[in-house]
Amino acid sequence: MFESAELGHKIDKETYKKEVPALRAALQDAQWDLKENGKIPVIVLVSGQDGAGKGETINVLYEWMDPRYISTLAFSAPTDEERQRPFMWRYWRALPPKGRVGIFAGSWYSSPIHDRIDGGMTKAAMDARIDQINRFEAMLVNEGALVLKFWFHLTKDGQKRRLKALEKDPKTAWRVTQWNWDRLKTYDKLQDVVGHVLRMTNTPWAPWIIIEGEDDRYRSLTTGKILLEAIRQKLADADRQTTPVAPPARPNIDGRDVLSELKQPKNLMLKDDYETQLAKWQGKLSELVRDPRFKNRSLVCAFEGSDAAGKGGAIRRIIAAMDARDYQIVPVAAPTEEERAQPYLWRFWRNIPRTGRVSIFDRTWYGRVLVERVEGFCADADWLRAFAEINDFEHDLSDSGVIIVKFWLQISKEEQLKRFKEREKIEFKRFKITEEDWRNREKWDEYHQAVCDMVDHTSTGNAPWTLVEANDKNFARVKILHTICQRLEAALDAQPGAEGVAAADKSSKKKG
Amino acid sequence: MFESAELGHKIDKETYKKEVPALRAALQDAQWDLKENGKIPVIVLVSGQDGAGKGETINVLYEWMDPRYISTLAFSAPTDEERQRPFMWRYWRALPPKGRVGIFAGSWYSSPIHDRIDGGMTKAAMDARIDQINRFEAMLVNEGALVLKFWFHLTKDGQKRRLKALEKDPKTAWRVTQWNWDRLKTYDKLQDVVGHVLRMTNTPWAPWIIIEGEDDRYRSLTTGKILLEAIRQKLADADRQTTPVAPPARPNIDGRDVLSELKQPKNLMLKDDYETQLAKWQGKLSELVRDPRFKNRSLVCAFEGSDAAGKGGAIRRIIAAMDARDYQIVPVAAPTEEERAQPYLWRFWRNIPRTGRVSIFDRTWYGRVLVERVEGFCADADWLRAFAEINDFEHDLSDSGVIIVKFWLQISKEEQLKRFKEREKIEFKRFKITEEDWRNREKWDEYHQAVCDMVDHTSTGNAPWTLVEANDKNFARVKILHTICQRLEAALDAQPGAEGVAAADKSSKKKG
Repeated sequence: MFESAELGHKIDKETYKKEVPALRAALQDAQWDLKENGKIPVIVLVSGQDGAGKGETINVLYEWMDPRYISTLAFSAPTDEERQRPFMWRYWRALPPKGRVGIFAGSWYSSPIHDRIDGGMTKAAMDARIDQINRFEAMLVNEGALVLKFWFHLTKDGQKRRLKALEKDPKTAWRVTQWNWDRLKTYDKLQDVVGHVLRMTNTPWAPWIIIEGEDDRYRSLTTGKILLEAIRQKLADADRQTTPVAPPARPNIDGRDVLSELKQPKNLMLKDDYETQLAKWQGKLSELVRDPRFKNRSLVCAFEGSDAAGKGGAIRRIIAAMDARDYQIVPVAAPTEEERAQPYLWRFWRNIPRTGRVSIFDRTWYGRVLVERVEGFCADADWLRAFAEINDFEHDLSDSGVIIVKFWLQISKEEQLKRFKEREKIEFKRFKITEEDWRNREKWDEYHQAVCDMVDHTSTGNAPWTLVEANDKNFARVKILHTICQRLEAALDAQPGAEGVAAADKSSKKKG
Repeated sequence: MFESAELGHKIDKETYKKEVPALRAALQDAQWDLKENGKIPVIVLVSGQDGAGKGETINVLYEWMDPRYISTLAFSAPTDEERQRPFMWRYWRALPPKGRVGIFAGSWYSSPIHDRIDGGMTKAAMDARIDQINRFEAMLVNEGALVLKFWFHLTKDGQKRRLKALEKDPKTAWRVTQWNWDRLKTYDKLQDVVGHVLRMTNTPWAPWIIIEGEDDRYRSLTTGKILLEAIRQKLADADRQTTPVAPPARPNIDGRDVLSELKQPKNLMLKDDYETQLAKWQGKLSELVRDPRFKNRSLVCAFEGSDAAGKGGAIRRIIAAMDARDYQIVPVAAPTEEERAQPYLWRFWRNIPRTGRVSIFDRTWYGRVLVERVEGFCADADWLRAFAEINDFEHDLSDSGVIIVKFWLQISKEEQLKRFKEREKIEFKRFKITEEDWRNREKWDEYHQAVCDMVDHTSTGNAPWTLVEANDKNFARVKILHTICQRLEAALDAQPGAEGVAAADKSSKKKG
């Protein structure tokens, strides 16, 4: 059922010697084209049974290709910086930039397969993870990546033969330990789990490539040829407009007009009332982030709103309740060159806080379905699939204990005009109104629709949108602080005590 | 002796209320100018006695300034990713990009001061560290940074009063523990050590600013005013061409002509001989990187040489002896946008391997004194100071256990022409000769001089240059592999056994 080479499973020395030079030259040429093209990251997963030649294959690829444009990422026990962040963070940070080849020795598959065999993961949990993986890989492919998943296979007898041969040679005997022989005993169990995982993740956009591992020459040559063919094919396809792979399905754009339903408060909040409430919720927030139960969690606050809606002012009131060493503010403007060489969610992943910390995003990943949609900065297909991708992203976060609070600050068109005019009178440079601000204003109705669609498609159980009536700044600030406190408190109360979470956390994260 | 505000040490409520709004507006305007100017990173060190208001001051700066363009870096116990790299790595990775303000809560001063008080660091070791710090800060300033070092001071009585006041208020009593009272007992000792460190690092390019910490209003207002004035001054200076601060002194450019003295071997190495030697040293290297003693060390290989000198081929022969999971190759081309926003050594620091790993640089930080010098990409003053800065950089590495091996591959002008012509006949894209290659060739003599100066000024005890006679590719490859093995073996033999190093390592790195 899986894609596999049509060749026999052995290759003789003569054929090998004859074929390698041309393959090698072709691979390096393909790498050159990849670099010149500059739009495709190549992600190569090298996985398979012990002794099936994973390490050897990687070394051969380095020998054949230009090693300067390959990187190999090995995932063993996660570092503490990785353990303190969501499960997928270590893989996101290791993604190769466009034009390069990244070889993953160990990947997002290692941990579920391992945990399932150990019995630490239920079948249901594994199937949920498999679903996540399929969607993650679809996102990578939709973002332009070539994802090649190699599984190097060895029969039980083949594995025995290999271990014995290694033991016999004094130069390689050190590589065989009791652990290897013990692993052999679990061969059948491994086959069961692997079979299930491979079947379930053998998607059209990232199919598995099974390669018999016993014969070195067959394994190397086959891997090299498949890699070459895949890169060539991808480069040829890159010139044509491609439609995104499924999932995600195309959502119905029928967002309910939640914004017009939102009623701004009739009267301004009284100053005394504001000050009392502000102090109350700031005090509460200050306690919550110091709560020992927060040590195992982290908080992401996402702020969206039209120009002059008061995002900055609200953020100031939040941070006043915290220690500067515990939070970071991430202003989202144009992506840097390194960020443009990655999937659009990469620059948000890199700013995900470690446990016990807070990240506040001033504008967010929702730029994809707001400004990029309205201004036509990306194709329709791109922002249409973003709804599901963003839900997946937030699911990855909340699944790992991150508390997500999202705000849309809504002001009326009249209120914005009033604020623009006020700002024009102020001499401070930071309040300068640019032509772009006026231009954005002309697209008010289009943004209105985009926001409604966004709220409709991305309000999920763990990451609901909070719409904020922001014509009255003070009212908005109090509502935002109040909401953060409520969400934070509910999340901390819902967790089974700090120790319980720490333990659960550890077991799900210990394997790469 | 230190720069300090001329104001009294107390400020009344009236004055404070009157002065803050203007200061705040001015600070935000200055931040705006800083962002527009885009050339100056502002590095603010917030240090001082416990209870002298460090955290409070940072919070006030966030309140007054635009928090989106400030980041705060807190350094407590290093993470394992930090512990596995040289001491200065964690500070390099935290440097703010140009146009932004980075506040360091804890810094490169914390660890020496702490270790000196604990008795874990000798006076001589501390003085060596102080010297390193002065040179590091000079480098930052020469690279355009504004370095502001605040020391918040509190008298012994002041500290007592503060702790008692905190204890009295039920809302803040939790902040005072026995640890705080114990620390008070070491006040005099701390003063001694701090006094020494502050005097020795009170340089013209990065003077200490001592601020009395007892009165909140005085402390905040004074800090804010000094910060504002310093940013304004720096922005005004930025328009003028500034001469670098000392150190480093201007070196004499009188490099001995070591390249002409280098004798290429008369006869080509025989194929059999080459293959035997290659296998021998590859085998040796493979053993050395698996040596348990290497677990606490790391290896940096630096390759320089003119076009077509054979760097790539040599690197291929090195990596053939290693597991792809243990090394990375860093091809050095034009810096990315994020790298250009940092001191020129930053992009090399970010690729420094963790313990047990190898980084191979295909072209290096020596670009500064080679291509940048010859092509005029930087001012004379910039490459002239680079010799000392690079020596400091390599000293930081080797001081932390990194083994550095540097190669210059020397070919004759005739040999290069021959290789260029051969390449033009080859159809592989990777061998394309560009116009730039021919242009570089025209500057042969200038590069010759630059290499001689480089070798003369940067061959140090722990990081000597190895000049490689590279007209014969095979000879060159064997010499390079042999040299790496020798240096690696000597370094491992010189260390006091793996356990000893691990322990020494731990004690010197445990504090931020």
